[in-house]
Amino acid sequence: MAQQMGRQSLQFENPPWIISSGCIAGTKEGEGPIGHEIDLIGEDDNFGCDIWEEAESTLQKEALTLALGKAGLKAEELRYLFAGDLLGQSMATSFGLQPFEIPLFGLYGACSTAGESLALAAMTVAAGYADVVGAVTSSHFASAEKQFRFPLEYANQRPLCTTWTVTGAGAFLLGRESGKKQNHSDNRKRTDSGSPMIKRAEQKIADDTEQTVCGVRITGITTGKIVDYGVRDSMNMGAVMAPAAAELIAQNLTDFKRKPEDYDRIITGDLGEVGQQILFDLLLKKGMDIRKQHEDCGMLIFDSQTQGTGSGGSGCGCAASVLSAHFLPKLASGELKRILFVPTGALLSTVSFNEGQTIPGIAHGVVLESCISSAKKEG
Amino acid sequence: MAQQMGRQSLQFENPPWIISSGCIAGTKEGEGPIGHEIDLIGEDDNFGCDIWEEAESTLQKEALTLALGKAGLKAEELRYLFAGDLLGQSMATSFGLQPFEIPLFGLYGACSTAGESLALAAMTVAAGYADVVGAVTSSHFASAEKQFRFPLEYANQRPLCTTWTVTGAGAFLLGRESGKKQNHSDNRKRTDSGSPMIKRAEQKIADDTEQTVCGVRITGITTGKIVDYGVRDSMNMGAVMAPAAAELIAQNLTDFKRKPEDYDRIITGDLGEVGQQILFDLLLKKGMDIRKQHEDCGMLIFDSQTQGTGSGGSGCGCAASVLSAHFLPKLASGELKRILFVPTGALLSTVSFNEGQTIPGIAHGVVLESCISSAKKEG
Repeated sequence: MAQQMGRQSLQFENPPWIISSGCIAGTKEGEGPIGHEIDLIGEDDNFGCDIWEEAESTLQKEALTLALGKAGLKAEELRYLFAGDLLGQSMATSFGLQPFEIPLFGLYGACSTAGESLALAAMTVAAGYADVVGAVTSSHFASAEKQFRFPLEYANQRPLCTTWTVTGAGAFLLGRESGKKQNHSDNRKRTDSGSPMIKRAEQKIADDTEQTVCGVRITGITTGKIVDYGVRDSMNMGAVMAPAAAELIAQNLTDFKRKPEDYDRIITGDLGEVGQQILFDLLLKKGMDIRKQHEDCGMLIFDSQTQGTGSGGSGCGCAASVLSAHFLPKLASGELKRILFVPTGALLSTVSFNEGQTIPGIAHGVVLESCISSAKKEG
Repeated sequence: MAQQMGRQSLQFENPPWIISSGCIAGTKEGEGPIGHEIDLIGEDDNFGCDIWEEAESTLQKEALTLALGKAGLKAEELRYLFAGDLLGQSMATSFGLQPFEIPLFGLYGACSTAGESLALAAMTVAAGYADVVGAVTSSHFASAEKQFRFPLEYANQRPLCTTWTVTGAGAFLLGRESGKKQNHSDNRKRTDSGSPMIKRAEQKIADDTEQTVCGVRITGITTGKIVDYGVRDSMNMGAVMAPAAAELIAQNLTDFKRKPEDYDRIITGDLGEVGQQILFDLLLKKGMDIRKQHEDCGMLIFDSQTQGTGSGGSGCGCAASVLSAHFLPKLASGELKRILFVPTGALLSTVSFNEGQTIPGIAHGVVLESCISSAKKEG
C-alpha cells in the first residue's frame, strides 16, 4: 500500500491518480494574475445567495460539480468526501456538500485543510478502501472577515503584512485508475440550478474533455505537527504559519532523502510575501535553500501592488483553487514533473485569540508527480 | 486491507487492535451512574486552568497521557493523531495535543467526531500506514454552553429535551499488534505536571497493568452522510441527530448483511431519551427493531432524574469516555462479543443557527469485537 518514510511521510506503492479537479473564485480573484486559469468566476461574490456563509457553501457545491462534470462521474460514484473550511463548526462544508449525499469525513486544519484532505483521500484510495473519492475545501473573504476579524462595514485598516482571504474553492477527484477519455455528454449533468456561472462552466467542461486524462498522481505525503513559535498577531498569518511550513518541508526532504532541486516547485499555500521571507530564513538556517523552487499560492492569485491585498492571498480556497487552476495543468502537460504542495494553516479562533493565546501553525505536504506516459498507456 | 461492504462500509481483513484507552471527566460525570468506571475525575471542572477552553485542552492531554501510560508507550511512538472537539476551529484539540508533537489530522464531525476519529485511525492502521496511532476527542459543558448557547451567568432555563454537554475526553490507541503485557514502570512517565488527579491516575494505571492485553479489535466501519430533516431547534439535539443515527444503523445492517441481534449492543453517542424514541420509531418504520440492543452513552453517563440533565449527556466527550470507561472493559472481558458504536453529531454553529439554517446531523459507525482468545494467543 505504502512505505513509511522516516518520521512523518508515506510513499504510495500504487499512487492514486487525480482524475479531475474543479475550481471557482470571486471577482477579485478573477481580476488577478491567474484569473483566466480559474474554471469559474462569479459575477459577484454572493454567488446568488443572500448571506456570505451560503455563498461559501455554493463555492464548494460548484467546485465539486465541476470536478464531477469533467470526470464524467456522478456523485453516487464517489465513496467518500474529505472536506473542510475555515468557519466555526465547518458550516460551509456541511451546507455545501449535504446535497451530494456522499459519506463525509469532515476535517479541520485551518488553511492547511486543502493538503490534509488530499492526503487522507490519497491514503484511502491507495489502500483500496474506495475507487473514487473527493477532496473539497473553500474560503470566502467576507465570511472569514466576519468570523475572525471585523465586520466589513467597519472598514478597518489592515497592516501591510495582512493577507487577504481568497473567495474560492477547489475540488479534486482521486481514483485508483487514471481518468479515461470518454464521451460524457449524457452524464455531464450538473446538480445545481440556474446560477449565472453555469454557461461558462459548461464551456469549460467541453474545453477540458480532451484533457480528461489528467496524468497526475499523488506519490507521497508528509503529515504535519502543530508548531507554536509564540506569535500572537492575528493580522500576520505569514509569520504564524512559516515555522510550520519550514518544519514540514525540511521533514519531507529528510524523510524522502531528497534535495530541494528534486522538486520542480515547492509550493506553500498562503504564506504571502512576509511569510515567504521567514520561510527562506528558517530553512537557510537548516542548510536548505528552496529559493529557486518556491512559489506561494497566495502570491500568485493576487497582484498585491495593484490589488491592495497586502502580503498576498490566504484561506483553504487559495491553495485549492491555485493548485487546480495553475499547477495541475502544468503537471498534466509535463511542464512540471514533480512538486511538493504544502498548504499551511493558522490555528486560531476569536475565542482563543481574545483569551490571549498564541497562534500555532500546521502544514500538510503532498507530493504530486506528472505521469503523462503511464497515463496514456493505461488510459 | 479491507473489503468494501455495500455502499458505505468497510470490513478490515486484518482488524486493528485497540491497545489501550484513557478517559477523564468532570465532577457531575463522576457523580453519575458510571462515574466509578472513569479513569480520572477532576476535583473541579477547571482542571487547574483559568479558562474553560484551557480546561478542555487539559482533558485531551490527560486522556492521551493516560492511554499512553496504560500501553507503556511514549508519544513519539505514535505516528498519527486523529482528533477533534466541538469548539470553533477545534481549539481544545490544537492547544491540548500540541505538546505531544505527533503528526495530526484535525477532524470536525460535531459529536460524531469520536466515531470519525476511530474510523480513520482504524483505516490508517489496517492499511499499514502506521504501527500505532491515537484517536482523541473531548467536550466541556462550560466551553460548549459559551460556544453554542448562553453565558452560564445568565442561568437560562433549559427545556427537558435539552441534553447536557459532558465534560470529558477519551483517547484510544490503535495498533497492528495487540498490547503486550510488560513491566512499564520506567516508561509510564506522564508528561503533565502537578494536577490533583495524578495520584488517582497512577493508581489506575497500576490497576490496569494486568489488563494491558485489551483484546478488542475494530473489525469494520460505516461512514455517515449528512442527513437533514429540517429540524431547527438547537435545544433538541436528540431530534436533530436521530435521523442520521437511524440511516447509519440501517446502512450498517444492510452493508454487513446483519440483523440487530448480530450485535450484543448498538450504542449511540448522545441521542438522549428524546432522540432514542425517535431512533426506535424511524428504524421500526424500516422494519428494524433495535430496542433490545440499544444503549445510549448520553443516557448512561447521567441519571437525568436526579442530576437535572434533561434528556441525557451529549458532546464528543460523552461517547468517547463512555466507550473507554464502560464498554471497552466489557468487550475486553468477553462479556460483550460484538458492538456497533455510533456517535452522532449535530452540524450547527451560532452563525448558521442565527441565520435561520436547519441543523443537519451526521453519524459514524464503528464495529468493535472482543478477540480475547486471539489476543491471548498473540499477546
